[in-house]
Amino acid sequence: MTSGAPDLSRLSLNTATTKLLTLAEAVDGAARAGYGGVGLWRDRVQEVGADKAAKIVADAGLRVSSLCRGGFLTASDDAGIASALADNKAAIVEAATVGTSELVFVVGGLDANPGPGLPARSYSAEAERDAAKDLVATRQRVADRIADLAPFAAEHGVRIVLEPLHPIFAADRAVISTLGQALDLAAPHPADVVGVVVDTYHVWWDPALEGLIARAGAEGRLASYQVCDWILPLAADPLLSRGYMGDGYIDFPTITRWVAATGYAGDIEVEIFNQQIWDSEADSVIATVADRYTQLVAPHL
Amino acid sequence: MTSGAPDLSRLSLNTATTKLLTLAEAVDGAARAGYGGVGLWRDRVQEVGADKAAKIVADAGLRVSSLCRGGFLTASDDAGIASALADNKAAIVEAATVGTSELVFVVGGLDANPGPGLPARSYSAEAERDAAKDLVATRQRVADRIADLAPFAAEHGVRIVLEPLHPIFAADRAVISTLGQALDLAAPHPADVVGVVVDTYHVWWDPALEGLIARAGAEGRLASYQVCDWILPLAADPLLSRGYMGDGYIDFPTITRWVAATGYAGDIEVEIFNQQIWDSEADSVIATVADRYTQLVAPHL
Repeated sequence: MTSGAPDLSRLSLNTATTKLLTLAEAVDGAARAGYGGVGLWRDRVQEVGADKAAKIVADAGLRVSSLCRGGFLTASDDAGIASALADNKAAIVEAATVGTSELVFVVGGLDANPGPGLPARSYSAEAERDAAKDLVATRQRVADRIADLAPFAAEHGVRIVLEPLHPIFAADRAVISTLGQALDLAAPHPADVVGVVVDTYHVWWDPALEGLIARAGAEGRLASYQVCDWILPLAADPLLSRGYMGDGYIDFPTITRWVAATGYAGDIEVEIFNQQIWDSEADSVIATVADRYTQLVAPHL
Repeated sequence: MTSGAPDLSRLSLNTATTKLLTLAEAVDGAARAGYGGVGLWRDRVQEVGADKAAKIVADAGLRVSSLCRGGFLTASDDAGIASALADNKAAIVEAATVGTSELVFVVGGLDANPGPGLPARSYSAEAERDAAKDLVATRQRVADRIADLAPFAAEHGVRIVLEPLHPIFAADRAVISTLGQALDLAAPHPADVVGVVVDTYHVWWDPALEGLIARAGAEGRLASYQVCDWILPLAADPLLSRGYMGDGYIDFPTITRWVAATGYAGDIEVEIFNQQIWDSEADSVIATVADRYTQLVAPHL
């Protein structure tokens, strides 16, 4: 590294940030910019196959910080459960093949939801007994499926990394809504088999965050630190309401210090879903991410 | 009450649900439908004056279940603090005058926010030191302002009712994001001076909700139970993304049983911000609210 150049050795580019790039293009861009790693989405991995994806990343001298994503574990019918288990076993094998031990899980929403962004079923007189809205039971099914998958993950040296999602997504994407809940779900399992990710976008608002990050560290479960900002107004699709660090409301220095205080020594992954950023020139996006990381995150690690 | 007619004696119509009605019209509609109470917003009270508002409600034989709202306590400058204290003292006097002991507080968002729905200030090199994004300090200012106001509220027999808002609003409307945090903020004060409201829309996703409702009850701080549903897709203005009970994702029977288990004997207030509902004929809205309450809430009280 050139003297005085920023140290990006712990910075990882999640391929969702440069959504339009192929895997090879994203890896090349990250490597040229001096990043230390990449976080991969399964769609980009599957385009080339897991073996070739592993080679592309290794040849560029980068690490795979995580694979996104497993999950969607909330089905209540036998076919849905079998399908979820099969898909997640495939994801576990993929994670091991691409060379990461960390498989991020987005666990899925309520059965009552017909799909992301669609309206709930209309009210009917049966709604009172509608098991599909039973959040407690839905969360229990997530716990059951994690127990089903944990031995398989352990055999493959892959950690199930539970991602708490912002409560805005509790109905349609993930019934794990807080870091504390993720840690409670992980608790029955060894720390190297079930961990958690701290994504600033999802947890920044939590009044208990400092203590929960400390707990994740003390329990050896802090598998990934992901950063991007909460911006307003929300995009029409709230999934795309993420911004560069510094463009929104999140206090990155403070949260980063809480993470660093645990002794976390892993990568810092940047995963931004944002149409405007996707429409921008990729090298400029990669440079802006590096600049914001250098100013707002790295000094506090 | 006619034999067999639903018992609406604990149902309260928040005037925000029928936004286009004057106070007198809303009270008349609620009374004709058999509701037991109304929840008032300050704008509707101020249109006629607090004394006259009290008379309108009493003449209709209804109770005032709460006054909305005090709050917006997060200012960090002397002028902003003085203004917030003055406005909240006026609200406390209004609450006492209209005849309710329960003044709901929406405590305000980060200073970094230029106003609801507007983008944050652009990133600058100073952002790292931007105190306006310091959520921990902002929340401490809320605690300080509550302490400033509590003696005045106590003198007037009015309870400061802290409302945790859904974390979607943490940046721009309320830095109280969970019922647990609201209870922690209330803890230094007597239970009849600082309480909490459980609004299903804001807290339904919380994995700790059952225990927190029990705690609110055990501590004598459960001042109000408000119901409306979380619907998707979100409205362009997320503030207006509320629906009739049963039209969204919330499990009202379960949450209502948790509230009832505390011994809560107060009103159940329905506060729905929704443009489509505001555009509907008011008596039909009032009837639909009563119907959903009767089916999804009342049987579990």
